[in-house]
Amino acid sequence: MKILALDSSGLTASVAVVEDEITIAEYTVNYKKTHSQTLLPMLDEISKMTELDLATVDAIALAAGPGSFTGLRIGSATAKGLAQALQKPIVPVPTVDGLAGNLFGTDKLVCPLMDARRNQTYTGLYEFQKQGDTYRMNRILEQCAVALDEILEKINSLGREVIFLGDGVPVFCKQIEREIAVPYTFAPNFCNRQRASVIAWLGIQLFAEGKVQTALEHAPEYLRLSQAERERIEAMQ
Amino acid sequence: MKILALDSSGLTASVAVVEDEITIAEYTVNYKKTHSQTLLPMLDEISKMTELDLATVDAIALAAGPGSFTGLRIGSATAKGLAQALQKPIVPVPTVDGLAGNLFGTDKLVCPLMDARRNQTYTGLYEFQKQGDTYRMNRILEQCAVALDEILEKINSLGREVIFLGDGVPVFCKQIEREIAVPYTFAPNFCNRQRASVIAWLGIQLFAEGKVQTALEHAPEYLRLSQAERERIEAMQ
Repeated sequence: MKILALDSSGLTASVAVVEDEITIAEYTVNYKKTHSQTLLPMLDEISKMTELDLATVDAIALAAGPGSFTGLRIGSATAKGLAQALQKPIVPVPTVDGLAGNLFGTDKLVCPLMDARRNQTYTGLYEFQKQGDTYRMNRILEQCAVALDEILEKINSLGREVIFLGDGVPVFCKQIEREIAVPYTFAPNFCNRQRASVIAWLGIQLFAEGKVQTALEHAPEYLRLSQAERERIEAMQ
Repeated sequence: MKILALDSSGLTASVAVVEDEITIAEYTVNYKKTHSQTLLPMLDEISKMTELDLATVDAIALAAGPGSFTGLRIGSATAKGLAQALQKPIVPVPTVDGLAGNLFGTDKLVCPLMDARRNQTYTGLYEFQKQGDTYRMNRILEQCAVALDEILEKINSLGREVIFLGDGVPVFCKQIEREIAVPYTFAPNFCNRQRASVIAWLGIQLFAEGKVQTALEHAPEYLRLSQAERERIEAMQ
């Protein structure tokens, strides 16, 4: 199958077109522009470069949250517009799962850390398990918004070596060094941030399980209330 | 440091700009266009998108071979031109090392397989070893051009689980299934082909070791004679 994948959940913007085992094109930018300046021009660029007819795509996979509220809304709006116009399903992929997928084939625990502000991180715990001639990713702890302490305690209690990745690493690395009780490493530049081709990989698996939405049904998974919503609720109390 | 990385050693063309632990931009295309149609336009595209002043780059890392002869020459000519104009060093990275880097953090053997035609593969064997808070890649077998039999025998003699990747996988997978005696898997779409950001990762390490060349010094590492050279030698005998 052919799948278009988008990830604008963090500072990184990433677009990929994947056909089965081949990434036909992937374009990733980690730069201070807003995703409204990057995401659609990047899609346009790779479509032209690979002479892609968007009508030949079977589905649109999307990093559906958590993440930056604005980033998620831009990704979601883009996916919904494309899905509506092309009459194709959206495959929502949990953002933290997408990050974890980067470490394909490791025997270590994988712990993505996204900086969620307000002393929290969007995180989860994952491992890879051999299945036939590939590996599948298992969730040990589903994506969640917690304090760093909480996820480090969980890792320490599991007692297994861990690889951290994500934009939370530069924010939290000092605290990790102080509080972690198991061997740990940090993922390097080429596998430590969001990539649309990983979203595509997970999207193809979810598509096969029928986990799709229409353009109308889809909404981002924020995991928390936005600042505006929190303030409205506080004001009403 | 900031490094520009290029890989046009196979069907894939890939360009990345990496600053220390961050991939600022990466653009990868695996499509039937020739690299003369893709590589420089891709560099131009990411330079504009990230407002990159090429003069701020410290070095140019390049997948220096083996690979497609034409692809290597286009990559090499591009790197030499840029290095000469910008007065920056070239960091040649062995192509097969670059492919293997994709599997960062695995405890399995890593075996890249490039289709070298004439019943050969460009291959090598690698493993990852923890070093402080990261992993370094060790070469168990340096990149070489051999028959598939030969590399499979070597893997069988080591008796360790292995992950295969590269454009040789679809070509050789049936023979692998018949002849391999250890557990094996194939890498999925997002880590089974050349990526410039991996070349950048290895390039930064080689740069630190002083393994650089000037534009004038650099030449691709073909590992074998080209068809034209073979035919000339045969005709002369």
